[in-house]
Amino acid sequence: MSEITNILESLKSIKGVHGAALIEKFGLIKGSALPGWVDPEAVAAMVTLILKASQRATKELEQGQFNNAIIESGKGKILFNTVKENVLVIISTVEAKLGIINLKLSAATQALESLL
Amino acid sequence: MSEITNILESLKSIKGVHGAALIEKFGLIKGSALPGWVDPEAVAAMVTLILKASQRATKELEQGQFNNAIIESGKGKILFNTVKENVLVIISTVEAKLGIINLKLSAATQALESLL
Repeated sequence: MSEITNILESLKSIKGVHGAALIEKFGLIKGSALPGWVDPEAVAAMVTLILKASQRATKELEQGQFNNAIIESGKGKILFNTVKENVLVIISTVEAKLGIINLKLSAATQALESLL
Repeated sequence: MSEITNILESLKSIKGVHGAALIEKFGLIKGSALPGWVDPEAVAAMVTLILKASQRATKELEQGQFNNAIIESGKGKILFNTVKENVLVIISTVEAKLGIINLKLSAATQALESLL
């Protein structure tokens, strides 16, 4: 298993986290630790849409570069976080605590940055 | 001024909030209290992209119906919140406190729901 996958797998130990994936800005899947019922291509497509929305924000609302995003739905949350030229996506239940995720996320982000 | 616009204008009193808009799911602008430098059509386009991303999440990741989203960029935040068949968008600075915004938001959401 690659070191990237190891780091993504480690995020699954957080209560409520289903899985994680690292997607390059143009949609290439760089690493994935997603449950079997999640298609990595669908996650990559979501990253593309979120980055498009953010690009409009940057261009027309003077919001600067994309940092991160969260989509909260009835049955889960999806977190998107920039790691260099990539987006780290975390899929979780509604109940998962953002504070705990963000804590582990910053460690994972640092580890990933040293590999990319 | 319409009652919807009044409610949107009231959100601007929150520290760091530049403005707000109410966008119908298919992109129609139902109300807007945005600063002059923000094009409501650009905000509507962003809502469409966020809802598309959320729809993929609903269909392929079994995440249920869209509730809300946040995009955080280098110079600002954009919040998207469901109000019946519409999305209330709030544009703020990076420094704006989400706790305070969410407090005022729930009052505004209730007021809007009674009008829609």
